[in-house]
Amino acid sequence: MKQEVLAEQLVDWRRDFHQYPETGFLEIRTASKVAGVLEKLGYELSLGKEVMSEADCMGKPEEQETKQHVKWALENGADKKYVEYFAEGYTGIVATLETAQPGPTIAYRFDMDALPIHESEEADHVPNQLEFRSGVANTMHACGHDSHTAIGLGLATQIAENQDKLRGTIKLIFQPAEEGTRGAKSMAEAGVVDQVDYFIASHIGTGVPHRHFVAANNGFLATSKLNITFQGVASHAGAEPQEGKNALLAAASAALNMHAIARHSNGSSRVNVGELHAGTGRNIIPDQAVLIAETRGETSEINQYVKEQVQSIVDGAAKMYQLDYQLEVAGEALNCDCSLDLAEILKQCATSHPEMDQALLESNDSAGSEDATYFMERVQRNGGLATYCIFGTELAAGHHNEKFDIHEDTLLPAVEILYQAVEKLGAKER
Amino acid sequence: MKQEVLAEQLVDWRRDFHQYPETGFLEIRTASKVAGVLEKLGYELSLGKEVMSEADCMGKPEEQETKQHVKWALENGADKKYVEYFAEGYTGIVATLETAQPGPTIAYRFDMDALPIHESEEADHVPNQLEFRSGVANTMHACGHDSHTAIGLGLATQIAENQDKLRGTIKLIFQPAEEGTRGAKSMAEAGVVDQVDYFIASHIGTGVPHRHFVAANNGFLATSKLNITFQGVASHAGAEPQEGKNALLAAASAALNMHAIARHSNGSSRVNVGELHAGTGRNIIPDQAVLIAETRGETSEINQYVKEQVQSIVDGAAKMYQLDYQLEVAGEALNCDCSLDLAEILKQCATSHPEMDQALLESNDSAGSEDATYFMERVQRNGGLATYCIFGTELAAGHHNEKFDIHEDTLLPAVEILYQAVEKLGAKER
Amino acid sequence: MKQEVLAEQLVDWRRDFHQYPETGFLEIRTASKVAGVLEKLGYELSLGKEVMSEADCMGKPEEQETKQHVKWALENGADKKYVEYFAEGYTGIVATLETAQPGPTIAYRFDMDALPIHESEEADHVPNQLEFRSGVANTMHACGHDSHTAIGLGLATQIAENQDKLRGTIKLIFQPAEEGTRGAKSMAEAGVVDQVDYFIASHIGTGVPHRHFVAANNGFLATSKLNITFQGVASHAGAEPQEGKNALLAAASAALNMHAIARHSNGSSRVNVGELHAGTGRNIIPDQAVLIAETRGETSEINQYVKEQVQSIVDGAAKMYQLDYQLEVAGEALNCDCSLDLAEILKQCATSHPEMDQALLESNDSAGSEDATYFMERVQRNGGLATYCIFGTELAAGHHNEKFDIHEDTLLPAVEILYQAVEKLGAKER
Amino acid sequence: MKQEVLAEQLVDWRRDFHQYPETGFLEIRTASKVAGVLEKLGYELSLGKEVMSEADCMGKPEEQETKQHVKWALENGADKKYVEYFAEGYTGIVATLETAQPGPTIAYRFDMDALPIHESEEADHVPNQLEFRSGVANTMHACGHDSHTAIGLGLATQIAENQDKLRGTIKLIFQPAEEGTRGAKSMAEAGVVDQVDYFIASHIGTGVPHRHFVAANNGFLATSKLNITFQGVASHAGAEPQEGKNALLAAASAALNMHAIARHSNGSSRVNVGELHAGTGRNIIPDQAVLIAETRGETSEINQYVKEQVQSIVDGAAKMYQLDYQLEVAGEALNCDCSLDLAEILKQCATSHPEMDQALLESNDSAGSEDATYFMERVQRNGGLATYCIFGTELAAGHHNEKFDIHEDTLLPAVEILYQAVEKLGAKER
Repeated sequence: MKQEVLAEQLVDWRRDFHQYPETGFLEIRTASKVAGVLEKLGYELSLGKEVMSEADCMGKPEEQETKQHVKWALENGADKKYVEYFAEGYTGIVATLETAQPGPTIAYRFDMDALPIHESEEADHVPNQLEFRSGVANTMHACGHDSHTAIGLGLATQIAENQDKLRGTIKLIFQPAEEGTRGAKSMAEAGVVDQVDYFIASHIGTGVPHRHFVAANNGFLATSKLNITFQGVASHAGAEPQEGKNALLAAASAALNMHAIARHSNGSSRVNVGELHAGTGRNIIPDQAVLIAETRGETSEINQYVKEQVQSIVDGAAKMYQLDYQLEVAGEALNCDCSLDLAEILKQCATSHPEMDQALLESNDSAGSEDATYFMERVQRNGGLATYCIFGTELAAGHHNEKFDIHEDTLLPAVEILYQAVEKLGAKER
Repeated sequence: MKQEVLAEQLVDWRRDFHQYPETGFLEIRTASKVAGVLEKLGYELSLGKEVMSEADCMGKPEEQETKQHVKWALENGADKKYVEYFAEGYTGIVATLETAQPGPTIAYRFDMDALPIHESEEADHVPNQLEFRSGVANTMHACGHDSHTAIGLGLATQIAENQDKLRGTIKLIFQPAEEGTRGAKSMAEAGVVDQVDYFIASHIGTGVPHRHFVAANNGFLATSKLNITFQGVASHAGAEPQEGKNALLAAASAALNMHAIARHSNGSSRVNVGELHAGTGRNIIPDQAVLIAETRGETSEINQYVKEQVQSIVDGAAKMYQLDYQLEVAGEALNCDCSLDLAEILKQCATSHPEMDQALLESNDSAGSEDATYFMERVQRNGGLATYCIFGTELAAGHHNEKFDIHEDTLLPAVEILYQAVEKLGAKER
Repeated sequence: MKQEVLAEQLVDWRRDFHQYPETGFLEIRTASKVAGVLEKLGYELSLGKEVMSEADCMGKPEEQETKQHVKWALENGADKKYVEYFAEGYTGIVATLETAQPGPTIAYRFDMDALPIHESEEADHVPNQLEFRSGVANTMHACGHDSHTAIGLGLATQIAENQDKLRGTIKLIFQPAEEGTRGAKSMAEAGVVDQVDYFIASHIGTGVPHRHFVAANNGFLATSKLNITFQGVASHAGAEPQEGKNALLAAASAALNMHAIARHSNGSSRVNVGELHAGTGRNIIPDQAVLIAETRGETSEINQYVKEQVQSIVDGAAKMYQLDYQLEVAGEALNCDCSLDLAEILKQCATSHPEMDQALLESNDSAGSEDATYFMERVQRNGGLATYCIFGTELAAGHHNEKFDIHEDTLLPAVEILYQAVEKLGAKER
Repeated sequence: MKQEVLAEQLVDWRRDFHQYPETGFLEIRTASKVAGVLEKLGYELSLGKEVMSEADCMGKPEEQETKQHVKWALENGADKKYVEYFAEGYTGIVATLETAQPGPTIAYRFDMDALPIHESEEADHVPNQLEFRSGVANTMHACGHDSHTAIGLGLATQIAENQDKLRGTIKLIFQPAEEGTRGAKSMAEAGVVDQVDYFIASHIGTGVPHRHFVAANNGFLATSKLNITFQGVASHAGAEPQEGKNALLAAASAALNMHAIARHSNGSSRVNVGELHAGTGRNIIPDQAVLIAETRGETSEINQYVKEQVQSIVDGAAKMYQLDYQLEVAGEALNCDCSLDLAEILKQCATSHPEMDQALLESNDSAGSEDATYFMERVQRNGGLATYCIFGTELAAGHHNEKFDIHEDTLLPAVEILYQAVEKLGAKER
């Protein structure tokens, strides 16, 4: 495929995914399409539960919602051949290609999920002008994962076409549920990067200027997403207040004390109770309360410290009011510590690319949290190198905004730089 | 009208109101029907804003909801002639009749509103068997006000038919929005009981056995219904936590400290934050929080004490977090201090009624709160007598339960006892 | 002894005890003097641990303080013969007398302890004028127990002198540590009232007018006195805040949530954290916190309910911050339910006394808490009758005030009324 | 004076100050001795209120305590000539010397105050062995300010002896109450460094190894020391709980919410309620509560942010419970931003000193807080340079420990390095 054709194909893929966005663990249409393309290119596929540890999936939707979505996917162009592998919501894919000659194992991670955001209906929003706006209410690719998936397929194409002159083993990982940092741990725990020598995750946008590149983005905070439920006993507040077990007051105490967790002297920490919902009526002692919370840390250790304090506080608040409770980890990510040796190679690939104006080795700007860090930590623990790079692009609006949009000219250079890295890394001694 | 016919008419009225339940300040169909009957009987009517102080309506629905409901009422049998008087949601009625001879002014209060409860769909529920179940989803006469309204019309009928042998002036007050104790104050403040010598409110059920009567029910607690809203500033909890003004933590502090209000040594008090809803997302500093709360007191003074503490606490919690706030009084009632001289007369009427097994002068069992207390306090302040009586009935399930139902045999005796009181009171010297 | 002589003796005793006040479980001088008098009168004595269950003593001072006080007592006129029985702070006495003829067992309770209050030094304070002011700094008989002890000895005298004409068995109980409701349970649990048919406790003052008598004072609230200690870990608040385990914040959470314990619909309840002391320095995460608290209830069940909520809250607050804690019950009393049959007899005795203007059968005015209720509950449980009576007197200032003083004319009538009851009760059939 | 003699003199001075420690704003004996030495050396002195803004003194002791201490100082060797200048507790000194030739103005800051710590009585503690242990109970030079004062006098001596060959104006500032960061602001606001070109503060110890030197110590956190008092109304917790205004619950709420202040994304922050004391008795609604607290920030702006949140929280907590309150700033310091150009010169002086093993330009290790930062900020704002340097020494135990002790061999090199700086800085162009 000529590069002009590939460029068009990338846009087609991206717009298709954009029109049919699917949120975390529901990427059934998306994954089935991805699998179809990869198999045709000759990759060996491992799908669904083969590449995901069920016990390590976090924040997965209810079975009922998943079943309904399978139906939707089949009605909206899913590749029937693969839907069965993903039908329970385990939507991960690992595509493996042995190139012509032995060499290192090189892995790339692409995330596929959309967000529960209603895409802008304003006329000046490019997806409206060009008619590829999300066809699903309250669901939108507002973070660029549609582009990531397209770039992954583009890279797969270029590698497959050039496999005779490449060295080593290629693993392309398509991950579900990056939003809320829910999906990566499950694939990492399933061992999909255990033989990997070089691991590269990438993101488009995130504040990096158009035609700029960051080879090692280290600013991610470790995080835990926590859903806390207190279950008490309702009672009439006027007639028998003493018979109630008050979940609202436990939640209020928990929220206050969670925010009062001591700062950590080794670095930044965060804790937020973003939502609290309790009670069912004015004159009823509230028997139910839910807290939607998160912790963060400059390092995984700091985040772990905050999380452990939260656990104590929630346990104590429940005991105060003689309640049952549940503390669900609905997402989690580690901090990021890119391998600069690997980043240096990526930076060289970007520097030499004609469409790139500037390539930076490292950035520490905070960019939220990322669960690709689970893959990175595991690769590095096994002696491999890992990095997280960013392809700058012109954004119509910030990530997670209803008017988010990227500049599609970024897609082809991204594929080409990642492909260059395959060539360079294959040539390295292991 | 013979008493057998009246008995049937009472059942017809009650079932009609039961099928078309309307919640507080939306009793447009109900009030229009009531007005139609009363006018035909020869009563002089004062309607809507004529008998309600706009400033003293509490917890009134939004204008939009009222408008939509007017449409519904017109489509569901409202008497068009009167709808205009109630179209803004001021649904009170005062019907006056001068009897043949001068005498005291005697007033009766009847409440007309339903509850936001979905009536049982089970087959054994009598309104289902006899096909007069609520035709409106999530709305139900689950407290007996349909019966109260029917009794009021029955009493109106019997008085009108016998006016030649009666003495004094009769005032029949049909009140909106008793649920949530929202409507009575508005009518009392409009002065509708200012010339009243004897005031009688009544309720069916409330735990009194079938064929039993309580002439003075003193167990009501004074109460205030409070809706509290904190308005802060949202901010990204990871990137700029210091820019937020946290409404959730203010609400949590307010809830804890409200429950910690000191007990009052003069009698029972209550405070309950029944609901707390705050925040919009896991990673956002919550900028909005709502508390749905109530206070109660064995006396109005005790309730006032608790309410004042709540006001201080809410004000302080807002200041803590530099927030704006609103504290809306969404309902209010006083405590109850029945005039036993008047109750004694009612007790005699009940004792002499053949369908009654027992008549009790006074009960102090707590029966929640009642805003008829506004009328009672005002009548007594002006030198009149007032009482709150209960007609026991066999209940299918407790008040506010989805399977609530009364025994319709209670309707006619209730009318007859109240009518007897008119005769006896008219004969008294003023 | 003639009554004029007894009257003088009563004043002498009372002023002696007033000058040498001893707080709870330290009544060593007092008890030794009491024992000396009683033995001389011919009573059989049971002393110290013989009449006190060690495990049920609450809020007892440290061993060191007790030892030092023994030394003080010996230097200040204690009767050396008895000090050894009380030297560990078990200062209870039961004095038994078998009268001439068989009959019921009649018990009287007198309390002996003083308060940690500094007696007024103002010239107009009668004990200053008459030179019997407390000789001990910060210790004062400001509740009248000096008078109670004197009355007990007066009653002992009159009974002993008249034993030939009396019937039944007399038990005079001199109890330590009524303040803080700490001492009675220990004597009740030792079984000292297990064979008692009639039990009478009495108090002087408590708001009853001079020359008035209340035969059954039912207004006491059940209570628990709770000392709560949280033990955490200190840390430098600037350098390593995360290493601390913050006892201050646990205590703050506990205090707020204790006050927020739901009211009980069966009657009055109270909870108070009267003192909170936490932390050792501005820049140290506080590792220690103490709460001095109490609960009360209109019934023992209500108090028990509140106490159990406190236990849960304290346990939960400790868990929140990963702390150790202690919850010591430093005092406890039950509610009061006087036997009106017995009170009626006492009322007759008072009515017939020439110095008494009025005798009331029953009063329900709240008068704090009293641990004589432990004796009462046990006597009644075993089928006996019990009451708590009050001898009104003119007070210079309220109980527990530094200027508290009684009218000494009340002493002799009190003895005489209690003695009359012995005569009347002895004559009753068992 | 030969350097050996100076070395001995330094030890004498240091041990004298060590034996007579005085806490902040009570350095009356110390300051009088310092003034005596400086005047003899020919310095022009400005004393007490001449160099201190009364309004900016923070955390000053009560007048009574100051008066008593003046008496103590006079009895313990204070130089009577100067006591009057310091008798109200304004104990600052600025000593000025014009050297032989015009040149820049160079200022040095030395702090003189001791800590409320009881010095170790153990035999192996060097001040015990050499008999210069603190002669004052609970007061000790446990931070090295005795050495600082001695070094200041040593530097004064060496400068005075060499003034003929020096250039510029020398200002030696002896500051009270550095502990608690209370004294510097008062002198800075009085303008004592307003004409200063080079400002050098120094500290001994603080974790820097023996014979090491740090020329620019930037690790200080900005801080505010806050004493918060809530004043409510007491009431009997059983009889009339509703009459109280509960200061304990306000303090508990304030403490929790202060710790819950949102972290700042621009850098580290701290908040600590180190002590909370509330209430006077178990059965009294607490009418009084005190919080001893501090805030810190990596920058002065961050500290200011935290302090402002504390102010809102305290104000709101008082409003919650209808209390009066006071928020006293008992100490304050800014963050530290040393002028590296000036530090470089100091580093050269240290590098060339034969007793020094190593000189570091800059350190960012957190070393608590320092109010010399007020002088530094003011000098820099006026265009001057400022730095804070550290003379490492062998410590017997950490700062603020009861066994704290320095190695006296550090004293002379400190004087010599600071003196070298005078020579070098005088030679620089302004």
